[in-house]
Amino acid sequence: MERLTGIHAVREALEAGRALDSVLIVSGRRGDRIEELVQLARRRGVPVRFEDRAQVDRAAGSREHQGVVAFAAAKPTVGLEDLLKAAKASPPGLLVLLDGIEDPHNLGAIIRTSLAAGAQGVIVTERRSAGLTDAVGRASAGALAHLPVARVPNLARAMEEVKEAGCWLVGFDERAGKCLTDLDLTGPVGIVLGGEGKGLHELVRTRCDFLASIPTTGPVRSLNVSVAAGIALFEVVRQRRGK
Amino acid sequence: MERLTGIHAVREALEAGRALDSVLIVSGRRGDRIEELVQLARRRGVPVRFEDRAQVDRAAGSREHQGVVAFAAAKPTVGLEDLLKAAKASPPGLLVLLDGIEDPHNLGAIIRTSLAAGAQGVIVTERRSAGLTDAVGRASAGALAHLPVARVPNLARAMEEVKEAGCWLVGFDERAGKCLTDLDLTGPVGIVLGGEGKGLHELVRTRCDFLASIPTTGPVRSLNVSVAAGIALFEVVRQRRGK
Repeated sequence: MERLTGIHAVREALEAGRALDSVLIVSGRRGDRIEELVQLARRRGVPVRFEDRAQVDRAAGSREHQGVVAFAAAKPTVGLEDLLKAAKASPPGLLVLLDGIEDPHNLGAIIRTSLAAGAQGVIVTERRSAGLTDAVGRASAGALAHLPVARVPNLARAMEEVKEAGCWLVGFDERAGKCLTDLDLTGPVGIVLGGEGKGLHELVRTRCDFLASIPTTGPVRSLNVSVAAGIALFEVVRQRRGK
Repeated sequence: MERLTGIHAVREALEAGRALDSVLIVSGRRGDRIEELVQLARRRGVPVRFEDRAQVDRAAGSREHQGVVAFAAAKPTVGLEDLLKAAKASPPGLLVLLDGIEDPHNLGAIIRTSLAAGAQGVIVTERRSAGLTDAVGRASAGALAHLPVARVPNLARAMEEVKEAGCWLVGFDERAGKCLTDLDLTGPVGIVLGGEGKGLHELVRTRCDFLASIPTTGPVRSLNVSVAAGIALFEVVRQRRGK
């Protein structure tokens, strides 16, 4: 991943609207220029993390960073409002909300499948999520360049906005009593998937309109999250095609 | 991956029925003991490859290998007949045939999904396929320990046996005119999937009873093969549940 070091280089990249994955700042660094940088990053939707000096040194690969390092992303994210607008413009909308997918291969595969299923975009969290890195781009087989992705600081809050925009939210949970194929998925819908092994956070789960399971059997009943996403998205496609 | 070096160690492992991924022999090595070893490996269904000395040295990590190195597998394979027997014993049977899946993550995810969909087993090729290594076991989330896998030298020939056992073979091909959901998948069926980027070999494609596509849309219409496997397998599950 390409690195930018120093206040000036990072500020320029932010001002130019360059796609950044995240900004790292040494904890305790103060001053107007740092403060300005933090505000600018937040306005651009780029997550800011504070770490101790040794970690920032390691991340920067040198000590000449004035306390600031940024990582380039493979593509810029979009605002949630733009995604909701796009979903409204192609009814019935189809969005994918990801609650902490940290593996770049899984995130890339989900972006690829979402695009192929006709979704208008993917919503990921700023923290506990893989960034839009080159590895994600490769795993998406190029789909990352075509599908808008929004990064949100708080998924539960974003879910409220998605619901206000008219989408029903269907969360996937192995323990849900309702089977995916029992739901009507022909209207505007947001598919909500949790991270591998952890599933949906409680705050996210309770905001779903429905919880659904995939009818698995046998001794290992969970699925890889990118496989579960594919099954869910193409059940939506099947129902909308009237099959 | 654990290595065994030397004629004696490899022969003992084969005689004990230990799970081996493959046996590597220096090209041009002759003699009764080598000949016996090759026959024994073939009887056990363990692929034998001949490579030049430098490659075998590298694979062995030393030059003390008497021309023979073997790699341990995470689990033993089963014979094709056993898999067909298992498929007949749980009608309608469900098998997954893989035409050259080389990525261990994809193979592991497909094994995991196959087990969760209630398949009786997976058939892979000896060559141009990931072996049943620890990486595959990890990617399968433990499913590899539960699901029988057969390794066959020739997939086209194995397909004839699967058809004789009463399964219809459905091959997946992006260009197929028929959509997956247009097929009746409630009878005994074998799902045939090709390697990432390459698809099905011509000899394999022509032996399928049906070719089907997944109804993708947009600029990147192909799917990751483990995602495609999940969509295909859970369409079978959906149809058999009568939904």
